[in-house]
Amino acid sequence: MNRTTLFENIQQKASFLCVGLDPDLQKIPAHLHKEADPIFAFNQQIIDATYQYCVAYKPNTAFYEALGTRGWESLQKTIDYIPSDSFTIADAKRGDIGNTSGLYAKAFFEQMSFDAITVAPYMGQDSVTPFLHDNKWVILLALTSNPGSHDFQHLPIDDHVQLFEQVIKTSSQWAGQDQLMYVVGATQADRLAKIRALIPEHFLLVPGVGAQGGSLEAVARFGMNRQCGLLVNSSRGVIYAGHDKHFARAAAQAAQSLRQEMQVCLDKYL
Amino acid sequence: MNRTTLFENIQQKASFLCVGLDPDLQKIPAHLHKEADPIFAFNQQIIDATYQYCVAYKPNTAFYEALGTRGWESLQKTIDYIPSDSFTIADAKRGDIGNTSGLYAKAFFEQMSFDAITVAPYMGQDSVTPFLHDNKWVILLALTSNPGSHDFQHLPIDDHVQLFEQVIKTSSQWAGQDQLMYVVGATQADRLAKIRALIPEHFLLVPGVGAQGGSLEAVARFGMNRQCGLLVNSSRGVIYAGHDKHFARAAAQAAQSLRQEMQVCLDKYL
Repeated sequence: MNRTTLFENIQQKASFLCVGLDPDLQKIPAHLHKEADPIFAFNQQIIDATYQYCVAYKPNTAFYEALGTRGWESLQKTIDYIPSDSFTIADAKRGDIGNTSGLYAKAFFEQMSFDAITVAPYMGQDSVTPFLHDNKWVILLALTSNPGSHDFQHLPIDDHVQLFEQVIKTSSQWAGQDQLMYVVGATQADRLAKIRALIPEHFLLVPGVGAQGGSLEAVARFGMNRQCGLLVNSSRGVIYAGHDKHFARAAAQAAQSLRQEMQVCLDKYL
Repeated sequence: MNRTTLFENIQQKASFLCVGLDPDLQKIPAHLHKEADPIFAFNQQIIDATYQYCVAYKPNTAFYEALGTRGWESLQKTIDYIPSDSFTIADAKRGDIGNTSGLYAKAFFEQMSFDAITVAPYMGQDSVTPFLHDNKWVILLALTSNPGSHDFQHLPIDDHVQLFEQVIKTSSQWAGQDQLMYVVGATQADRLAKIRALIPEHFLLVPGVGAQGGSLEAVARFGMNRQCGLLVNSSRGVIYAGHDKHFARAAAQAAQSLRQEMQVCLDKYL
């Protein structure tokens, strides 16, 4: 999916919500365990219930890999099930030497038809560029939402630049705003203005709203650009909004509520 | 596997060779394509042929993921096939927020019984510590062997410290030499002395000997400690030493030849 289409979808749905498909066998409603593939059954109902309120889905590969081959099958069925006008992100945080990154690209863009993959920057240019394909996206980790983000991402490279800013500066020379997005955690929304000065046009994938404590309004205020430029992810807040047979209805309500907040932000800041 | 056993195996085999199991359908001998699982058939023969000359095996997960569910099955069969006295490394370069890294640990330490997993440091402490389990190992990327290693890993944090050194300094406070190893590329062997000053006791996983141009002798000279402290990986140089029906014999010869060089290094530097 290209940037124009993504922005059209955001306008049409008045939403920049990404739903994180992170299904955990311990947390999904008990009645689903009698299904042949409980994880896929859960995802199907979540997708059906939230589709009209979101523009993107982001399965985190760890949740599937933890179940072995069976989990990998559930992931394949899930990506096949997501409607093609939804933007799909493999939250895989891969990155390796060139020929190996090329194989990860094959795994997520060919074997599975994801639009985007999250990539870790530590190994540099030749670990990132093999993911650049037509109408596919690299979403590079810049500033994450977890406590450990302070260990290295904030290290000063010189008096004015921290590591996460240097990662953005350097990597934005490898690809443009039509192939590259960045992960910027919502828990550090005050940094968004500084990041926007470096990359005014790029889309940002923003985790950390909800369970991790980030504010949607602050993210929109500091981060929105003229093509929205934001995909805000919610995982647990949507998919575990309910715990019983009516979980899908609860997920729909949670997604709808986020969409309403997003519509206000779009009206105010776009 | 604990450090004592690993060192005993190194002494017994007079080898610190790790064989990278990176099977590519385009490169494995043609006659294997008639097998039900060509990748596993290839790995089986490589393992049988090299077992006496190496102490570790390192499947790179990208090569399996690129084949979808089928590849994931081949990986599971491969890890089940490797003799239990070989040290096994999932070269997966994972790393995510705490609960997610915990799931990756489950995938590679429980679903599959790997001894170790390679982890990317960018997301900091809570992305790494969920991989710390009894008798399991985190192998953290410090200084990699690819050209892109110069993009960020060498950035100066202050007048004396580069990012890869800061990663080592900080992370070596999270776990000791019995749970943590580091990836240090052989193409930058001159840095090994500096790294050894920071972490004299830790094991280092060293890729880049062979196809990527690193020198085994230089790695041993600068990197060996009193418990060897090195696992030197060769992938392509061993597994694609031959291309026909006698590929396993060629792999055995390549591994044996590396083991001979290693024995000389052990005699000289241990």
